[in-house]
Amino acid sequence: MEKINLNQKLSLFIDFWNPKIIGELNGQMVKLVRIKGEFVWHAHENEDELFYVVNGSFRMEFRDRSVILMENDMIIVPRGVEHRPVAENEACIMLFEPSSTLNTGNAKSQFTKEQLEKI
Amino acid sequence: MEKINLNQKLSLFIDFWNPKIIGELNGQMVKLVRIKGEFVWHAHENEDELFYVVNGSFRMEFRDRSVILMENDMIIVPRGVEHRPVAENEACIMLFEPSSTLNTGNAKSQFTKEQLEKI
Repeated sequence: MEKINLNQKLSLFIDFWNPKIIGELNGQMVKLVRIKGEFVWHAHENEDELFYVVNGSFRMEFRDRSVILMENDMIIVPRGVEHRPVAENEACIMLFEPSSTLNTGNAKSQFTKEQLEKI
Repeated sequence: MEKINLNQKLSLFIDFWNPKIIGELNGQMVKLVRIKGEFVWHAHENEDELFYVVNGSFRMEFRDRSVILMENDMIIVPRGVEHRPVAENEACIMLFEPSSTLNTGNAKSQFTKEQLEKI
């Protein structure tokens, strides 16, 4: 029951597309990730996923449209929906999703991270 | 799959200790609440609870100590742990917790909100 400061946690890593676990509750994980560039198209079969912009901005692409997210915006991507985050410039995102969630969902690739670090 | 902006959502209500639902995923709810003053001591038997400070600051009291939380800080209160949020000045908090969570947990009182509004 210590406090968790997002900026302090962000100071602990610099790599992109490699989510770090900062908290766990009710079978869900809270993660932080730095993103830059284009991720892979993917969906999560059984997991809804929340993206919250801590700083910067990014575009969440869906097959039929895109949503621009700025600081303090969030979006919930329901299970089964294909999506691809794209960040022109670096952005820092907080994720809230089930502990079972794999970052690339159904699209294993060089972006896939099977083991996430707790920080 | 619309974006949710915390400040826009906060502009929709002014009452204290009355959480509003702003999102739902994986059986969990995302809520926003304005707090000021002392809440009641309570615990949640089966639910861990995450508090994230959107703006302002508050003190999370436990029976043996307190934790001061500022903007961008979060804390996870495990199930079963008695706690009491106290805010000297108004603060805005985002909550993540199971859909079943009652705001006052095991301590029904005038603060209890059985039905929460979705905004």
